[in-house]
Amino acid sequence: MKTTEQSMPVKIIPLGGLDQIGMNITAIEYDDTIVVVDCGLSFPDDEMLGIDLVIPDVTYLKEHADKVKGLVITHGHEDHIGAIPYVEQEINMPIYATKLTMGLIDGKLKEHNLLQNIKRKIVTHGQIINLGCLRVEFIRTTHSIADASALAIYTPAGTIVHTGDFKVDYTPVYGDAIDLQRFAELGRKCVLALMCDSTNVERPGFTMSERTVGKTFDSLFADHQEHRIIVATFASNVDRVQQIINSAYKYGRKVVVEGRSMVNIITVAQELGYIQIPDNTLIDIEELSNYPDDKTVLITTGSQGENMAALSRIAANIHKKVTIKPGDVVILSSTPIPGNEKAVSKIINELEMKGAKVIFQDTHVSGHACQEEIKLIYTLVQPKYAIPVHGEYRHLKRHAELAESLGIDKEHICILSNGDVLELTEESAEVTGTVQSQGIYVDGLGVGDVGNIVLRDRQMLSQNGLVIVVVTMEAGSSQILAGPDIVSRGFVYVRESENLMEECRDVVDDALMRCLDRGITDWNRLKTEIRDDLSEFLWRRVKRNPMILPIITEV
Amino acid sequence: MKTTEQSMPVKIIPLGGLDQIGMNITAIEYDDTIVVVDCGLSFPDDEMLGIDLVIPDVTYLKEHADKVKGLVITHGHEDHIGAIPYVEQEINMPIYATKLTMGLIDGKLKEHNLLQNIKRKIVTHGQIINLGCLRVEFIRTTHSIADASALAIYTPAGTIVHTGDFKVDYTPVYGDAIDLQRFAELGRKCVLALMCDSTNVERPGFTMSERTVGKTFDSLFADHQEHRIIVATFASNVDRVQQIINSAYKYGRKVVVEGRSMVNIITVAQELGYIQIPDNTLIDIEELSNYPDDKTVLITTGSQGENMAALSRIAANIHKKVTIKPGDVVILSSTPIPGNEKAVSKIINELEMKGAKVIFQDTHVSGHACQEEIKLIYTLVQPKYAIPVHGEYRHLKRHAELAESLGIDKEHICILSNGDVLELTEESAEVTGTVQSQGIYVDGLGVGDVGNIVLRDRQMLSQNGLVIVVVTMEAGSSQILAGPDIVSRGFVYVRESENLMEECRDVVDDALMRCLDRGITDWNRLKTEIRDDLSEFLWRRVKRNPMILPIITEV
Repeated sequence: MKTTEQSMPVKIIPLGGLDQIGMNITAIEYDDTIVVVDCGLSFPDDEMLGIDLVIPDVTYLKEHADKVKGLVITHGHEDHIGAIPYVEQEINMPIYATKLTMGLIDGKLKEHNLLQNIKRKIVTHGQIINLGCLRVEFIRTTHSIADASALAIYTPAGTIVHTGDFKVDYTPVYGDAIDLQRFAELGRKCVLALMCDSTNVERPGFTMSERTVGKTFDSLFADHQEHRIIVATFASNVDRVQQIINSAYKYGRKVVVEGRSMVNIITVAQELGYIQIPDNTLIDIEELSNYPDDKTVLITTGSQGENMAALSRIAANIHKKVTIKPGDVVILSSTPIPGNEKAVSKIINELEMKGAKVIFQDTHVSGHACQEEIKLIYTLVQPKYAIPVHGEYRHLKRHAELAESLGIDKEHICILSNGDVLELTEESAEVTGTVQSQGIYVDGLGVGDVGNIVLRDRQMLSQNGLVIVVVTMEAGSSQILAGPDIVSRGFVYVRESENLMEECRDVVDDALMRCLDRGITDWNRLKTEIRDDLSEFLWRRVKRNPMILPIITEV
Repeated sequence: MKTTEQSMPVKIIPLGGLDQIGMNITAIEYDDTIVVVDCGLSFPDDEMLGIDLVIPDVTYLKEHADKVKGLVITHGHEDHIGAIPYVEQEINMPIYATKLTMGLIDGKLKEHNLLQNIKRKIVTHGQIINLGCLRVEFIRTTHSIADASALAIYTPAGTIVHTGDFKVDYTPVYGDAIDLQRFAELGRKCVLALMCDSTNVERPGFTMSERTVGKTFDSLFADHQEHRIIVATFASNVDRVQQIINSAYKYGRKVVVEGRSMVNIITVAQELGYIQIPDNTLIDIEELSNYPDDKTVLITTGSQGENMAALSRIAANIHKKVTIKPGDVVILSSTPIPGNEKAVSKIINELEMKGAKVIFQDTHVSGHACQEEIKLIYTLVQPKYAIPVHGEYRHLKRHAELAESLGIDKEHICILSNGDVLELTEESAEVTGTVQSQGIYVDGLGVGDVGNIVLRDRQMLSQNGLVIVVVTMEAGSSQILAGPDIVSRGFVYVRESENLMEECRDVVDDALMRCLDRGITDWNRLKTEIRDDLSEFLWRRVKRNPMILPIITEV
């Protein structure tokens, strides 16, 4: 039996993470066992109008629920843990994660009242867990959140190493450096496939250590001792917050943490010992006015220009407790994620107009490996197959080229798409099928009730608004009892366009008369004629395409 | 009289150009004379849903039409000439510009059938024109479009130097270097105010010469001699196109120019002698298939990921004449303008998925001056006052700091907002008022008929769609004859939400009954009650806020 087993392929099925929207989740399947790696959400693209979140489609997992033995999590970022409460309601899986990661997951489960129902197990780096016929080892890495892990997944077909999101930080702020020795040991013992982070693969060189940002903070705090300092950064970057607090303490400042998600994460990190805050340093935002400006630091969310985050509200002067004063120093400790540039720029403008000095140079380092770090991991792990993950196609492609340049056989580099089923053995790698993997939209409390038709309507409404035509007709006789009335929204400023509205009514009148003269009494036909005529008229008259909605009421 | 005149201030009134959306236009006023500098449009922000263009509000100019003596143009970019056809219909001004700039303006006027009605005069660098009591000298500069000019505006209150958009290019592709000697001479003779480009003021150092991109093209063409090459760049960068053509010619390739705006501009540039194309180099796109791939180059628009531009259509496989083949080399000769990053990334992904190799490093230089160039101009011109222009507030602020570091008196640095009326004399600088300056929205053929209310509606519709409630009532008796019927668009996928729609109907029924029981027959009151109840219900039930539109028809 053993030989048969060994010649069976392991299946690798990314259900997300390989396109522009992120949302990381991958199924690793062998025989009667599926292990799920990460379970992230993504935030909507500009085209996903009104959508709050996108979560993965786990139809495949539901169809094979008996095989699913567990969910292993690499680290606590939203694009890796955010969909857990949604997915766990579809398919109950035990969760395995390191301590800080689990602390953040617990918070989410609590919010959704799911904490009691789901089995969770905290693992430590170096630990191996057994899940069906697979074993998973957690390996210490470094990233922009503490307690990040790579995974070694031992399958009868061979060992798969999944880096998670990582950088090679030799001097991290919390804990030890990335466990390069373990990567080397695994490489010595033979690794079937390496699934490696592609985020920064277009960048040459090496990502700087998180510690370098601490030095920048120190010198900025030294340079601006006479003013209040506000630092905006990612809520989840506990090490960054630690370093800001260190500088604050050094310069005798009290610290306020502001922004719901940051308060949540720092509270968890503090409870679990991932951040050390000297006594009497943290104060409540209500106490801010008790201290002179030059003795306070505000650490906030909103460094990406997010609409309702603390910094945006402060910049727009709608924050209830903080008002910008001339001389305030605002440090943006982040770089804009692509797509957020204009929002961030707007905030910088607003802050500077209120007299603040905004600083954003050398105040951030990435959490992802650049080219030299990726090369290092490949050189240690020496995988037979390379499967680039965590990136858009452009990144996966560049990653493939980089892997090839390191001597990986071109035939052994697999660029996958979401939903691909890759079957892997020592002898071959083949995509043998695809499974459902399009993201599911969450809008308010609705999960999946907004699809492409609804989005297409929102798109159309957003560009040109709508024109409603209301006609009341007598049942049987087809006589017009009232209307046609024209109502529009988001189309033109009606008071200044009365003529146009009058002309619209005439066009509809003509269409109605023509139909009724010809004895057309099928309401759908009538609506189509009205829509076509009015649409053609409006395009000719104002070169616009509003949605046209004829409503016929029968009395 | 002369002394009185000399103590009168000159007014500087920016009507655009000093915020996130661009759209450059400034009025310079002295006594009975107004000279308008540039007349640009801007492309809409993400929030301006459905808007095609934004043009300046020239109410102030119309109110002082008798004073307006002319429109002087610094260069031929859309944000400096794009609004001319719209504004000239409001107020007919003679236009003064250099040859290429005027060629591009003529094209616009022709499109709008205005060419016959407007006086235009081509000027050369070094020439001075008299406009009422002001004189304007055109000074040769270098920018990402040929024939760019700075202006020296001689007023009885002193000389104002306006740089236009510029960089200091010692080795431009077309024509001579920027006329630094003239800047120096003006400085020697005393300059009242310098209005200087702020675009790149946050960048240290010096912008590289346009010629450096030519070298990159040469080496890219040398490295990829076996494949078709497609280069996307800005339609108006004639020098860039010249350099691509030079490389193509050198490597024996035929050139196709694709994209309406690029074809237009290259045609004008060729007619006027601003681009030299060797015989038998340019071919029509129809002839492309007559040549082997490795003997052709396609130069296209769309380097910013613009939706309907040639490159986007090629990437999405909806271009009628060009299909990407594996091995094609696509060079993006531009960097994304903030806000376009995701669109550009999408195109890179699409092209690479079709097997193209996309190159975007070292293939572009900016057309704007960095810090060292700005310092150079200040040092030559030695103005009494500094008025930073062409930038968002953050840039104007940084520019002000830079001017101060060069020894300009802090009190003599004027950060203006659009609409500010700055009154300037040797003795003082003071903002004495403001004029209308909010952009006017162009949507299709409508100019100004879409305002903030319409945009707010589009915003609301785009996020949550709408729910229409139709009720037919008997006049007088207030009996319900038909309905309530619920129609929704962009709200939920109705087929999967029949229950919800049923519940909506119940909520409206209840509201109607309650009102009618209480004898409420004021339709507006009735509508408000329906809207409030339904809105509250939907928020509670699905946490969404669709636009709710009750329509009551009376029969």
